[in-house]
Amino acid sequence: MSNILTSLEDSSFSCSCAKEMINGGIHGHLNDCSARNLKTSANVKGPKKDPLPKDEEDFLKAVFQVILEDGIRKGRDITQKVVDFHQPDELKTLLDLEIRDAPEDHQGLIKHMKDTVKYSVRTSHPRFFNQLFSGQNSYALAGQWLTETLNTSQYTFEVAPVFTIMENVVLHKMRDIVGYTGGDGIFCPGGSISNLYALNVARYRYMPDIKKTGLFGLPRLVVFTSKQSHYSIKKAASVLGIGTNNVVLVNCDERGKMITSDLEAQILRVKAEGAVPFFVNCTAGTTVLGAYDPLEEVANVCEKHGLWMHVDAAWGGGVMMSPKYRASRVRGVERSDSITWNPHKMMGAGQQCSAFLLKHENLLQHCHEAKAKYLFQQDKFYDVSYDTGDKSMQCGRKVDVFKLWLMWKAKGNQGFHQDMDAIFDKTRYLVEKVKAREGFKLVLDEPECSNVCFWYIPPSLRGKEDEADYKDKLHQVAPKIKERMVLSGTMLVGYQPLGNKPNFFRQVFSSPTVTEEDLDFLVDEIERLGEDL
Amino acid sequence: MSNILTSLEDSSFSCSCAKEMINGGIHGHLNDCSARNLKTSANVKGPKKDPLPKDEEDFLKAVFQVILEDGIRKGRDITQKVVDFHQPDELKTLLDLEIRDAPEDHQGLIKHMKDTVKYSVRTSHPRFFNQLFSGQNSYALAGQWLTETLNTSQYTFEVAPVFTIMENVVLHKMRDIVGYTGGDGIFCPGGSISNLYALNVARYRYMPDIKKTGLFGLPRLVVFTSKQSHYSIKKAASVLGIGTNNVVLVNCDERGKMITSDLEAQILRVKAEGAVPFFVNCTAGTTVLGAYDPLEEVANVCEKHGLWMHVDAAWGGGVMMSPKYRASRVRGVERSDSITWNPHKMMGAGQQCSAFLLKHENLLQHCHEAKAKYLFQQDKFYDVSYDTGDKSMQCGRKVDVFKLWLMWKAKGNQGFHQDMDAIFDKTRYLVEKVKAREGFKLVLDEPECSNVCFWYIPPSLRGKEDEADYKDKLHQVAPKIKERMVLSGTMLVGYQPLGNKPNFFRQVFSSPTVTEEDLDFLVDEIERLGEDL
Repeated sequence: MSNILTSLEDSSFSCSCAKEMINGGIHGHLNDCSARNLKTSANVKGPKKDPLPKDEEDFLKAVFQVILEDGIRKGRDITQKVVDFHQPDELKTLLDLEIRDAPEDHQGLIKHMKDTVKYSVRTSHPRFFNQLFSGQNSYALAGQWLTETLNTSQYTFEVAPVFTIMENVVLHKMRDIVGYTGGDGIFCPGGSISNLYALNVARYRYMPDIKKTGLFGLPRLVVFTSKQSHYSIKKAASVLGIGTNNVVLVNCDERGKMITSDLEAQILRVKAEGAVPFFVNCTAGTTVLGAYDPLEEVANVCEKHGLWMHVDAAWGGGVMMSPKYRASRVRGVERSDSITWNPHKMMGAGQQCSAFLLKHENLLQHCHEAKAKYLFQQDKFYDVSYDTGDKSMQCGRKVDVFKLWLMWKAKGNQGFHQDMDAIFDKTRYLVEKVKAREGFKLVLDEPECSNVCFWYIPPSLRGKEDEADYKDKLHQVAPKIKERMVLSGTMLVGYQPLGNKPNFFRQVFSSPTVTEEDLDFLVDEIERLGEDL
Repeated sequence: MSNILTSLEDSSFSCSCAKEMINGGIHGHLNDCSARNLKTSANVKGPKKDPLPKDEEDFLKAVFQVILEDGIRKGRDITQKVVDFHQPDELKTLLDLEIRDAPEDHQGLIKHMKDTVKYSVRTSHPRFFNQLFSGQNSYALAGQWLTETLNTSQYTFEVAPVFTIMENVVLHKMRDIVGYTGGDGIFCPGGSISNLYALNVARYRYMPDIKKTGLFGLPRLVVFTSKQSHYSIKKAASVLGIGTNNVVLVNCDERGKMITSDLEAQILRVKAEGAVPFFVNCTAGTTVLGAYDPLEEVANVCEKHGLWMHVDAAWGGGVMMSPKYRASRVRGVERSDSITWNPHKMMGAGQQCSAFLLKHENLLQHCHEAKAKYLFQQDKFYDVSYDTGDKSMQCGRKVDVFKLWLMWKAKGNQGFHQDMDAIFDKTRYLVEKVKAREGFKLVLDEPECSNVCFWYIPPSLRGKEDEADYKDKLHQVAPKIKERMVLSGTMLVGYQPLGNKPNFFRQVFSSPTVTEEDLDFLVDEIERLGEDL
């Protein structure tokens, strides 16, 4: 029996022809290897079976062609539509979604894949300005394909040796960029969950007994966040049993930034009511206006009142890597206790990639650990501090780090510095363009992030600002233009109201490859689609 | 301006040569298309730029070769090691993980990808029995690669038209299999989060005000789950502010199944204390022993006391698709209120793919909705009931459905029926083998799921069951064999203690491609690694 093992060890990974595989053809290689495998694997009965049969390999190659041509090349092609829109009921008839008893053949499956691409929105298109993610990075994509292929879970070094130590390296680097010394972190399935982590560990720090005894019988815990912050804070408070009524919405100034004096007034009010403030969420890049809360000022208030300071930088966190714009946007971020930062947004890493970082050590572990003996055995033969899964509120956890790491390797720090500068520079270009254009009106004269919010005022409404129904009419313009835009498929831009402001467009991009021509097109196209309204 | 749009519409997706792409070369095609694009895209200034430059395309092709050869063919190759293990500190020196200022070239990146494969655990290897996932399905993998390429978020029909309606179709189908009429569901990032959803919507159903006002001042809410259930129930209770002390652990019988009489006794005890029972978690396939709780009996208790019945079928849910084994394992499952079912486990869909299904309508929406106006605009021009994102406690949500749908199309219902029967049939084979083998002792004579738990008793310990230190010595056998196993890299199997039982192996598999030879090897190899202990 020991002979078998020796021969196995000899054959594993030692195939010298592997090195030639990338540039050369694979068939000759396979034949060589198969022969050697037959010799060395005495434990395998019968004739050697190719672990990847030819028809399966051919299928995967055909899939790769669909991905390369339909998914990537056409997906980024400016001459293609961003979306080929059909109403839901019509789309159901165009796609064959039903699952049947019998299997389908490879040809049919490839057709399904092509249809899926055809009717999906091309988020990598240069004119997709609709969401807080856009563009497509080949390195991140390559990293994610490999991650999927390796299909492991991030919980233990035992099954994810490379990815557990890689996660430590990347999270450490991200904390360095924030300005934390030491600390901890974890990748989460999205920014909302990262914000949920922030609330949960902060609560644990102030009242660790809650983990065991719950909130019953305790005085109200209260969370503070700005009126323009993301709804995930409220959702998290509801999940955590704190309740949305115990999320105090702090007023914002005209630029959408939290008013620190109001924050402090609300804290004092809540204390006077006998409730217990414990958590302040600041936003670095609000969802609609892209506002950065005044972090230094908030840090002063949090220090004074002993509150946890969290920064939701899910969207605007990329600016921490911009030499040109960082200081004016996030000064004081290093004074926070924790931060949510989504590289799948401004850094283009692909969904999902959201880091929750904190400056405190051991807190994640103590807050979440359940010490399951079937997974986190303490009698393993390696240093089990590398088994980081018990820090999580999940069990199995998808590997989200590799795509970011590979992309970062490909760009270097320099690349991200340039990208972030470029995104903010191009925003300035669009701002100036919209300012100068007749019929366009900025919501903010000087937006801070790559959100550029504006109204398009069709000729029929210009000069009628004082009429009673002006706001109502203007409110209907953006949805109507959006409808035409989607049906044309030429681009995608979002719109929404805000407070008492009627619907306006929110142009947003997170891809450094967006050009001035794309931004010119955006403005021209909105005018074309809406000038008769 | 309208001419440009017309020409764009004409050119989009109408390229007739697309159909020839899969089997033919792509270069001729590209040239043809490029020429046409130049003609039709009057809005593009300057010479046409290839949206996927040659060097980038070459890189992606090289990546695909690494994935195909290193990731897939070698990953499934029985003559390869399952893991090439190195201690964490050594692994750090073998990998070049540091991110530097300067970018790295394609050659370096390909090297990093190959190293990542080399030192990662091959979870698709036929002898990976370590986790509740294993194997590799090419269709699921292909689906996931395309999902990554299309990179969208599942929240609105607007940006995920295909995937929102596909999610509805697949969740509906899964509910049909469970036996729910109507109902609702959502894909979640893993089973722990699905279980968290269950607790949250159940709580909302009984006390909807908690969403707004929290748990403060309420009587204790109490959750029931078996002693051998997954730790995610406790983690979820802690996150939800209920507290782990309010999770009552119900006794199990010798086979690891919840004892219903104890459940009822505990419910009465809790009520007598003035606390409020609201939720019972049953397990269909416990983590260690693979036990199925008696669902009909638990349903009777839940109906009698008006409690929410949840089934954590994250692991063992696949049996619902086995014509041969379903009835004896999950009879009564359709009487539950909700279920967690992870196709990324027994159905081999790849991580992450976890469905939370419930028989109640509107509850997910009402429990989680925040009605964000920037995302879920109500003045859209399509039926906004297709914007399902506000049902989620997340905002952006990764598309987890496509890989499962494509794989299901490829297999048909028949394929899954056969797979599930095969997994359970092969488990019988291993059980009989272990029963008959000297030195091996089953923990359960008749395991119900594909978990086969057993002790290996080395010759030095045989016949010494009555000695005082027998259990202590046996407790050390599995960790020692596991160490040798990892260092040999020949296979991976997990171990753990349970209650007062010393460490035993838990063989587990979820891949229908595991053969009897693989299971023979498992037993021989454990003996080889441990016979001198």
